[in-house]
Order: sequence, then C-alpha cells, then structure tokens
Amino acid sequence: MTDAHYMNLALELAKQGEGQTGANPLVGAVVVKDGEVVGMGAHLKYGEAHAEVHAIQMAGRHAEGAVIYVTLEPCSHYGKTPPCAELIIRSGLKRVVVAAEDPNPLVSGRGIGMLRSAGIEVETGVLKEQAEELNEKFMHFMRTGLPYVTLKAAASLDGKTATATGDSKWITSEEARMDAHQYRKNHQSILVGSGTIKADDPSLTCRLPGAVNQPVRVVLDTTLSIPLQSKVIQDKAAATWIYTTSKADPEKVRNLEKEGVQVTVLDADELPVRDVLLHLADRGIASVFVEGGATVHASFVKEGLYQQMIFYLAPKLIGGLQSPSILSGEGFQSMKDVPLLHFTTITKIGQDIKLAAKPIKE
Amino acid sequence: MTDAHYMNLALELAKQGEGQTGANPLVGAVVVKDGEVVGMGAHLKYGEAHAEVHAIQMAGRHAEGAVIYVTLEPCSHYGKTPPCAELIIRSGLKRVVVAAEDPNPLVSGRGIGMLRSAGIEVETGVLKEQAEELNEKFMHFMRTGLPYVTLKAAASLDGKTATATGDSKWITSEEARMDAHQYRKNHQSILVGSGTIKADDPSLTCRLPGAVNQPVRVVLDTTLSIPLQSKVIQDKAAATWIYTTSKADPEKVRNLEKEGVQVTVLDADELPVRDVLLHLADRGIASVFVEGGATVHASFVKEGLYQQMIFYLAPKLIGGLQSPSILSGEGFQSMKDVPLLHFTTITKIGQDIKLAAKPIKE
Repeated sequence: MTDAHYMNLALELAKQGEGQTGANPLVGAVVVKDGEVVGMGAHLKYGEAHAEVHAIQMAGRHAEGAVIYVTLEPCSHYGKTPPCAELIIRSGLKRVVVAAEDPNPLVSGRGIGMLRSAGIEVETGVLKEQAEELNEKFMHFMRTGLPYVTLKAAASLDGKTATATGDSKWITSEEARMDAHQYRKNHQSILVGSGTIKADDPSLTCRLPGAVNQPVRVVLDTTLSIPLQSKVIQDKAAATWIYTTSKADPEKVRNLEKEGVQVTVLDADELPVRDVLLHLADRGIASVFVEGGATVHASFVKEGLYQQMIFYLAPKLIGGLQSPSILSGEGFQSMKDVPLLHFTTITKIGQDIKLAAKPIKE
Repeated sequence: MTDAHYMNLALELAKQGEGQTGANPLVGAVVVKDGEVVGMGAHLKYGEAHAEVHAIQMAGRHAEGAVIYVTLEPCSHYGKTPPCAELIIRSGLKRVVVAAEDPNPLVSGRGIGMLRSAGIEVETGVLKEQAEELNEKFMHFMRTGLPYVTLKAAASLDGKTATATGDSKWITSEEARMDAHQYRKNHQSILVGSGTIKADDPSLTCRLPGAVNQPVRVVLDTTLSIPLQSKVIQDKAAATWIYTTSKADPEKVRNLEKEGVQVTVLDADELPVRDVLLHLADRGIASVFVEGGATVHASFVKEGLYQQMIFYLAPKLIGGLQSPSILSGEGFQSMKDVPLLHFTTITKIGQDIKLAAKPIKE
C-alpha cells in the first residue's frame, strides 16, 4: 500500500468530525506497522484529544517502530492538550507522513522540526491539496485572522428573491431549503441583517438530525430595530450576538442583555463588516454563514470579504422592475471592476440548481 | 437488428438537416431488406425532396418487398412534392415503421391510412419520444399555429445584465456568447426590441461556419425609434422585418421600406406579442429566438408565450439596486402565480454555466 492510500484513510477519519470541532481543524491519523493498520484516530471534539493521541493509544505497543500518517502537522505547543510531536517521539514511531503543514505562520514547521531533531523521518505534502481543502475554513482563519465567510442566496432564474409585493414563500423547493442546513452545521455562526429578522423572524438553527452544536446567531442591527419578541432573542435555542452602532438606544442594549443576548456596540454610524469579522475572530469564530438580506450581502461583496457563495436557483421567472434582487447597495459601476469567481459545484437539488462559486485569487 | 436500431439511424440522418429546412420538419428514412440497409435519406432543404424519396431512390430495385423506417408519418398530400405515401405504395414496400405521427390535426393519420388501405403493414410509435423532440419546434408550430419561442438571456450570479451605469461588455465569456449562435442557426428568426438595437446596434446574424440560411431579424419598435443607420437596416446580411404600431410616423415607414425592410403596422398602442407571433406564423416562421431586452422578454413571460429559456450565468456579482435585471415590467405579484419551469440542460461553458428550462405543461 502507498502512502497516499493510508493518508486517504486518515482524511476519511478526519471528515467524521465535521461540524463538531468548532474553530479547530479536522484531523485524522493512521498508524501502520509492517503493512498493517494498527491505530486510527480523529479529532472529534473541540478541547478534546487530537487525532494522533487516539491513533497512538489504539496502536498501543505496536506504535514502537511504526509509521504515522497525519493529515495536519502535529502540534508542538501546550494548548488544551500536550504537544502531539512529543507524544510521537515518546511512543517510538520511526516515520511521520504529513499532508498539510500548520497554516499558523507563528508555529508552522515547528512540529515537523521537533520530530526531525529527534531523529524521526518526516515526509510532508502527501495529499496536501485534499487536506488543505478539508480544512479550508480553518486554513483561511489561521492565515488571515478573519473568519471564512460563505454567502448564501436563493433566487429565481431572473435573479429575484421575492415578488414586487415582497412575497418570497417559497422561491426554492423544500429540498433546496433543507440542503442549506448542512452549511449551518459546518459553520460556527450564521449572520443576518436586522431586515431578515423583521421580515421573516427566522430561528436560524440547524434542523439536521444530530446537529448538537448550534452555530452562534449573529445579527447586524445598526439601530437595534429588531423586536424583543424575535425568535432569535426569545427561543434560547442557540447563542445570539448582536452588533450595533452608537446610534442604538442604551436601554434597548440593556433589555437585550437581560435576555442573555450579547450586544456589541461599535463606534461607527454604519456597521463596518471587517470590524465585525475581526471581533468574531477574537471570540474564536472561524467561519460565518451569511444568509442575507440584500444589504448585508452587498456589504460583504463590496469589501471582497467572502470566500464562497452558495446559490440556489429556482426554475421560475418572477419579473418586475421593483422586485428585489440578491444584492442591494450601489454595486460595481464598470464591468472591469467586477471580480471574477469560478464555479466549484453545479448540482441539481429537487427542482432547483445549487451552485457554489469562489472568488478567483489574484 | 431491432426496429429501434434502424429508427435510431433514421433519426441520426434526420439531424443532419438541422437549420437547413426552414419551417419544415427534420425527417430521416432508412430502407431495409433481408437485414441489409439498402437505402438512406433525409429531408435536407426546404422545398426539396422528402426523406422517403431519397431513401427509396437509393434502394432502387431493392425497395420491392422492403421495410422503410421513417421518423415522421409519410405525407398524403400534394405539396411542393408529390405524396410520399403514394411513392411507398408504388415502390412495393411491404412494411412501414413510423416514429411520430403528423402533428397537423388536419392531416394526422392520413398517410398511415393510405398505406394501410393499400395493404401495407404499418407500425407507429417506435422511438416516438426522440422523434417528437427532434422536431419539437415544428410539432409546436403545427399543433398551436404559433411559432416556437426560445428566450435567451445572460446575467451575473445576482441576475444583472449590466452595471447601474449600463456597462454590459461583457457579462459572459466569449465561449458562452459563441454558444448562443447555434440557437440563431436553428431558429428561423431572431427577435429583439428597439432598445437592444439602439443600445448595442447588433448585426443579429449567425456567425457559425456554414450558416447559409440567415434567420430573419425581427424588431419590435412601437414608435419606429431605431436609427435608419442601424446595422440590421443597412448591412443587408439577412431579411429584417419591423413590427410597429399606429403611433409610428408614416414617413419613417416609407424610409425603412426603401431600405428593403418589411414594416408591419399593427393597429394598437402597444405591440401585442401574440399578434406578432400569429403574423410571423402566417409568413411561415415556425421558430423565434428572442434575445431581449428586458421589456420584450417580460412581454413574452407575462403572456406565457415561450417554450424554452436559454440562460447563461456568469460567475460574477455586479450588485446595485439600479442595475438592470433580465425582466422589466410589473412581474408576478404573488409567488403562487409564478409558473414553474423545469431545467432540461445544465452545462459548463467556459467559465459560465448554461441552463435550459422549459415551462411545465399543466
């Protein structure tokens, strides 16, 4: 069996933790001795044991002289758990195969360095691309210090999100609407504008079976205009954080806080999305699923602060000069300023089409 | 070999005439005797010989006692050519296998009746669905008396056809723009509104290699506002027919007619698209490729007068409350009134996506 074979197994193990590890990366590990798999592990819960720990524990006495395949560079620092590089050295493994290096510029390469200093043979880059993609959100978060942002929208073939009278129930099919829940599961937060709360009063929870860790509900509300009776405030089904500006009435801030909502007042007239993202990053939020509406989406697009767009397209023609589109605001004035994306997914879901697109990196 | 095998060959032959037969259907025929193909034919040019004539001629003396596979019911009337049913009887064929019956309610079944009366065994419905699809436009034209209408649009992911300043060069890639020319080739006419002529001054010709029969260029222009210098008037690259209303200045009508343009003045304030389609049908136009703009598209959508929509979607986000969408007009007010289409094609073309959708028949 090749290194790629075992690394592929390690990647499969890693995937099982999707939506369970919070800001932590998905990691899988496989221990192989004399051509036999003797240990397998994955990082499954934020704050709990790393993949290497589980795999080496399973291997027991077979770890001595074995090879470990791990999808991400073993850590070299004392965090919530002791460093994995030390454990590997102590357990007597003779070779370490790594897919992707640690994206954190402050520690990248240190784990590998520790292993090599201890005389262990280390190989890197095996299935690197797949490993990077598996932890795309984590990689982005560590490299940029900003959460990974996915914009989600649903529209008719002519780009409308509702009729001119505001009727939007429903543009897309039940299947497409349920499909979107997987993104709620694999992002740490869901972000909407106050208009969405006022128009739809959504609960913004993930309703997939087995969704244990509900994402944080983030609301951008410049003037604290959403009603205190809104579901996101009253249902206590998940944490709710509201970002507002100095325009907001302090009494409203207090009333929301009484309901257990965290309110952050930014010193600005309009909510600067970059500042909101930096603030979310500080609170350990590595990924944000932006569900609209048009004003919020337009702010992220204008600043180029998104890494992915998920788009559900319904086979309908709504029409109407006055009916709303996905993006409001001013938009780009000249075609040459419009950034180019590339489609990464094109799938049929029920009667609708799901498209995923990512900005092309310059 | 099965009947379906030979009928499939007949369908393949039929396809070779695509874009060459005007309002006539695509038809293929295969003559088989003792398990050997002895004749093949297709209808290739409007006004010239039918598929059966070519196939029986190729079969020569082998036609006697043979089987003929023909994708459309043989004709029973004297048109531009003598009836094929008579030729089949006269040539001594013993069995006729037909895919689809003639869609014209006035003559449907007559050819088959003639053959049966002459003691020939006739089987119908072999690969009927494929044969109906091959002549979808012709079938629609014969059954409804109205041309088959394909709407074409191109937009960004957020449904915009230009920026707020009107910049639209280019939303989609060169590949997508060239792809649209195949539809110009396989429709008998291209229809646009006066706004499109004034904004882009397009030549509206098919620029595919081997495009011999240029589609008729149809312009809807309520007040005859397009400049006399427009390419569609001056370039003589194809026929141009303009539909206008009694609002139009008679002198302008005369000036256009001097340029060889056919002008039809309808007695109405706004151009009723159904009347335009009926008029086109009277002139032998069985198919119309509608290339916009938003007002023209909206009229066809409002009346439900379209059979297909071809949609090119570019991976771009333009934004802007003021930037134009595919459809203008009032649009549907309530989601329950919005007709449902179904996607028939989803393909990547260059960086873009091409979608085809058809209204779901009630």
